[in-house]
Amino acid sequence: MKAWFGEFDADNIRKENIRLAGSDPGELARWAGVIGSKDTCTGIDFEEVSIMGGLCGSPTEYKRLMHETAMAVARERISLSLSGKDMYVAQAVKSLDDVNFSYNRLTERLAEWYGIHFPEFKARPQELIKAIMRGTRENSGDESSLTSMGAPMSPDDVAAIQGMASGAQRLFDERKSLEKYITESMEELAPNLSDVLGPLLGARFIARAGSLEKLSRMPASTIQVMGSGEALFKHLREGTPSPKHGLIYQHPLVSGSPKRIRGKVSRMLAAKAAIAARVDNYSGERLNLGQGLKEKVEAMKAKTPRRKK
Amino acid sequence: MKAWFGEFDADNIRKENIRLAGSDPGELARWAGVIGSKDTCTGIDFEEVSIMGGLCGSPTEYKRLMHETAMAVARERISLSLSGKDMYVAQAVKSLDDVNFSYNRLTERLAEWYGIHFPEFKARPQELIKAIMRGTRENSGDESSLTSMGAPMSPDDVAAIQGMASGAQRLFDERKSLEKYITESMEELAPNLSDVLGPLLGARFIARAGSLEKLSRMPASTIQVMGSGEALFKHLREGTPSPKHGLIYQHPLVSGSPKRIRGKVSRMLAAKAAIAARVDNYSGERLNLGQGLKEKVEAMKAKTPRRKK
Repeated sequence: MKAWFGEFDADNIRKENIRLAGSDPGELARWAGVIGSKDTCTGIDFEEVSIMGGLCGSPTEYKRLMHETAMAVARERISLSLSGKDMYVAQAVKSLDDVNFSYNRLTERLAEWYGIHFPEFKARPQELIKAIMRGTRENSGDESSLTSMGAPMSPDDVAAIQGMASGAQRLFDERKSLEKYITESMEELAPNLSDVLGPLLGARFIARAGSLEKLSRMPASTIQVMGSGEALFKHLREGTPSPKHGLIYQHPLVSGSPKRIRGKVSRMLAAKAAIAARVDNYSGERLNLGQGLKEKVEAMKAKTPRRKK
Repeated sequence: MKAWFGEFDADNIRKENIRLAGSDPGELARWAGVIGSKDTCTGIDFEEVSIMGGLCGSPTEYKRLMHETAMAVARERISLSLSGKDMYVAQAVKSLDDVNFSYNRLTERLAEWYGIHFPEFKARPQELIKAIMRGTRENSGDESSLTSMGAPMSPDDVAAIQGMASGAQRLFDERKSLEKYITESMEELAPNLSDVLGPLLGARFIARAGSLEKLSRMPASTIQVMGSGEALFKHLREGTPSPKHGLIYQHPLVSGSPKRIRGKVSRMLAAKAAIAARVDNYSGERLNLGQGLKEKVEAMKAKTPRRKK
């Protein structure tokens, strides 16, 4: 079992089974900040366990250490929320869109360009770039190069298109770096939101809201329709049906579900996300809110009858 | 003076003053293809000069060699026009637009991103990228970093924004490579068009027309309004004034001239460009069509009175 001061075997509480996470508030805070405060409703006297484990010598010392550790965790959370991390993550996720857009535009251009030399070649962007980096069509490894109707390509033509291809590849690699940065930052900044929505979609919500703090003050109903744009205003203005989902549609549990339950799934996920954002912003505890979501959706699917056409 | 077979001093025609460009049609064609055929209207008997220079022994041999050289030049031109070079140049100029667009989008993003850390910093994209590559604002070399209100940036935040900045820089460098490729290719493919419009704008016209051959079949009036898009159709449909210029507006002699003569300058440049494209496509001779354009525009400016308001 995990406690704020370390781990122990709850079924067999003995000194040997208690592993302390540290001895001073600084060390303990790093552990406690990650696991969250789980010292309630367990029926186990944490004070006793910690004294047995050698953390402290008396109840007074236990209280002091717990208080100081809690303070250290809070200081850590505050410095994180003031660190601008959520703003950086928002920029990174917008960058991801910019890089994606540019990569697509450049690879479409490359397909057209290489198509003059080798019109018979059809491939996805990454294969196209690899083929271009190999030189003229003879080196593409593609059989149809033998009978190609395309124009020849001189060494300087090859060098020019390869320059473009490697520029596009640089953007592809940047995409992966940004995703890694977002995932790692979200793990630190908003682990619960990340858990419910996935790090990238979670970061998109922070970016859309403006900051984690702003997102944490939004009701679930707002989160559910965030990013649905025009559909929401039309609903408010003209009384059309309210939108069932906006950004949240990108969650695989929404987009992957049958249409008849997407509204329900969105509402459920938005509610979880709203809680996650609040916990992430104010305490930093990890609640495993992402657990069991798939099963819940399966249950919804079973319970909701198919619509008759 | 230049002749198809070499150079000589026209004021003092002696064996020592004649430099032959080669001895067989292949060698001569490389020279003749570049200088164009300038053997007319000079009052000098090229046949005599070439015999004196030791190129050939008799008028019959002169005729045979000249004919074979001309054939070799023509073969060279045909293989160039079938080489797809104009199609590659068209793709390169479109790539330039794509790369430019992407570079601008990414640097706007970088400005917003870096602005969270250092909102007081204002700079052009290239300076911004350099500042980001130096790390946090303390290393930017900017004085206002000392009193900045921006959020701190951790080492992994710095690494993430630097990754984006170096991706943007890669596009900036690609822009220069593409411009170099276009300039060199145009020198080979369409030296006269390049001379009149500049290599980049010339390449844009080829891209717009679809090929050098198609451009060479267009009347000057079409070239003048090419790329004016909607304005032309509105003229045809609704009888609004015909557009004075399209793409050609990008020429510094049009955009840099007072409004009252821009229509005239466009017409003049379009006429020159039409001739240039034809010569480039069919003969490859160099006519120096770009010479004296500036003076012509100056004369137009002097002759055309300012419009009264």
